Amino acid sequence: MSTAVQTQPNSQEGKGRIVALCGGVGGAKLAFGLSRVIGSDLTVVVNTGDDFEHLGLLVSPDLDTVLYTLGGIANKELGWGRADESWNFMEALRHLGGEAWFQLGDRDLALHVERTHQLRTGVSLTEFMAMAAERHGIASKILPMCDDPIRTMLATSEGMLPFQRYFVERRCAPEVNGIVFEGAGEARPSAQVTAALQSPDLRGIVICPSNPFLSIDPILATPGIRKLLEGARVPVVAVSPIIGGAAVKGPTVKIMAELNVPATSRAIAQHYGGLLHGLVIDEVDAADSAGIGGRVHAAPTLMKSDEDRERLAREVLGFVDLIAADLQTKARALG
Amino acid sequence: MSTAVQTQPNSQEGKGRIVALCGGVGGAKLAFGLSRVIGSDLTVVVNTGDDFEHLGLLVSPDLDTVLYTLGGIANKELGWGRADESWNFMEALRHLGGEAWFQLGDRDLALHVERTHQLRTGVSLTEFMAMAAERHGIASKILPMCDDPIRTMLATSEGMLPFQRYFVERRCAPEVNGIVFEGAGEARPSAQVTAALQSPDLRGIVICPSNPFLSIDPILATPGIRKLLEGARVPVVAVSPIIGGAAVKGPTVKIMAELNVPATSRAIAQHYGGLLHGLVIDEVDAADSAGIGGRVHAAPTLMKSDEDRERLAREVLGFVDLIAADLQTKARALG
Repeated sequence: MSTAVQTQPNSQEGKGRIVALCGGVGGAKLAFGLSRVIGSDLTVVVNTGDDFEHLGLLVSPDLDTVLYTLGGIANKELGWGRADESWNFMEALRHLGGEAWFQLGDRDLALHVERTHQLRTGVSLTEFMAMAAERHGIASKILPMCDDPIRTMLATSEGMLPFQRYFVERRCAPEVNGIVFEGAGEARPSAQVTAALQSPDLRGIVICPSNPFLSIDPILATPGIRKLLEGARVPVVAVSPIIGGAAVKGPTVKIMAELNVPATSRAIAQHYGGLLHGLVIDEVDAADSAGIGGRVHAAPTLMKSDEDRERLAREVLGFVDLIAADLQTKARALG
Repeated sequence: MSTAVQTQPNSQEGKGRIVALCGGVGGAKLAFGLSRVIGSDLTVVVNTGDDFEHLGLLVSPDLDTVLYTLGGIANKELGWGRADESWNFMEALRHLGGEAWFQLGDRDLALHVERTHQLRTGVSLTEFMAMAAERHGIASKILPMCDDPIRTMLATSEGMLPFQRYFVERRCAPEVNGIVFEGAGEARPSAQVTAALQSPDLRGIVICPSNPFLSIDPILATPGIRKLLEGARVPVVAVSPIIGGAAVKGPTVKIMAELNVPATSRAIAQHYGGLLHGLVIDEVDAADSAGIGGRVHAAPTLMKSDEDRERLAREVLGFVDLIAADLQTKARALG
């Protein structure tokens, strides 16, 4: 476990493992920062509620965003897919009259075809992503939240929509009235996720600044995960995706409004409730901190550059360690 | 049927339908020529014995060569695949450690992904290829020899090999001792192929200059087809793939030697036997014609340009019509 860390000189090594829960873009940026700082000591548990089958291929948008981001080959202009991509497959598919509402780049397609093929031969999604991460030179672990299908379905003004139909095809236009995680009841927990959250050298659990309703809630709805977070003896810290009443990207604020949740970091804290020991909010929202229960740390949370990502990761790790010291003091006081 | 023909001014129109049996490259060139001359009056019945599943995708090498050739987008440099192709999928697949012995270009992949997807939803290969041909602006019909799987297996010095493993992965190196068409016993005839061969306005049947053992024999092994050729009341004419003791491309001559068949047009005629009313041989082999039973027509059969293909197609059609006149005279004499 420590070899990759030893090659990355930094001040945060050797303090145990971090499990980060995350969705796509915003969450993946912090995961990238954490990966840069603690390398192989990081396990990222990724939302697969957005996964769906398209053209007979299994598509895992958040897993792929995390893979490409941590592998340093994410397409930063598009915010999804791979850098240095070509689109000849899509052009030929359109010519054939195939379904073209969901874009798959030529290089990206290799991951999709190979993954679908491997899964059909009995390889698990967890095993496949471990191989793919290794092939992309990623020292951190990337784990799907579950190997069984759990699908985020949105009750909208246009009826029930699978997430990608809502997000990509309908461009988030329908009003969202409710969110259901189909299959969560029947899914078996992932042994690898359970082991990561029960790791004896766990340093802390970080909920990345992803959409709480669409990216983190599916993870928390996965059998066993919420309970492991509730029972964690290490700090559980979230980073708010809200900056000054807005989300950096995606439909977070629109959905919060439709669900009658104010677009504030306080509402984020209330949403996670008793799960959290602490919340990192943006410094522009520092005035909100008074109304939030538990510890609050204000920091610049907008991540524009790789350096921003790494800096925020260090702030979050420092906050985790600060809370850990608190927890130890309390434990001693109770003992 | 006649609209497409009316837009192609030529001297061969309006004489009924031609069914051409063909495999990949060499056969597809003549099919292209025939398509240029008689357009929608042509039905090409294509070998699917080489089809196989690769990366979970159904690959139909001969069908695709015919589709791309008739659609004018074949890659003439490679002799397979599409013109103006890119290879980013393959590069990313190799990086992932996927099986890279079989090349799939980015544009070509659209046909493979969409076809596999459609077939899994219940569309037949015949229906899919009809749609693809229409999308590529092809007036002629392209029919797979069968919708059920019939697979060409080679008994070789390295054991039984599926055709593509022998042809692409092993580059035809193993010695071939025998050829088996797996599944031919259980396959149901294609209604569309049967109808084409029983068409009341059939003008003739052309066996294209494809490998007789690997490309034409699988078609003849498909239930019902040999019998329909034997009972045909129209001329059945083959074009020999042998020119001066050699084949233009592929393993034809090597396999003929391994099967103890001399590399001559006479041997081709003997192979097809009583099926043929006539054989077109190359003009350099004109001296061989004496030993061939039935009618023989010598012509330049090497097709380097589109004009060569069209010229040979016209020669073949003229030969078909000459034999048809013979058959009519004989039928009158018998009646």
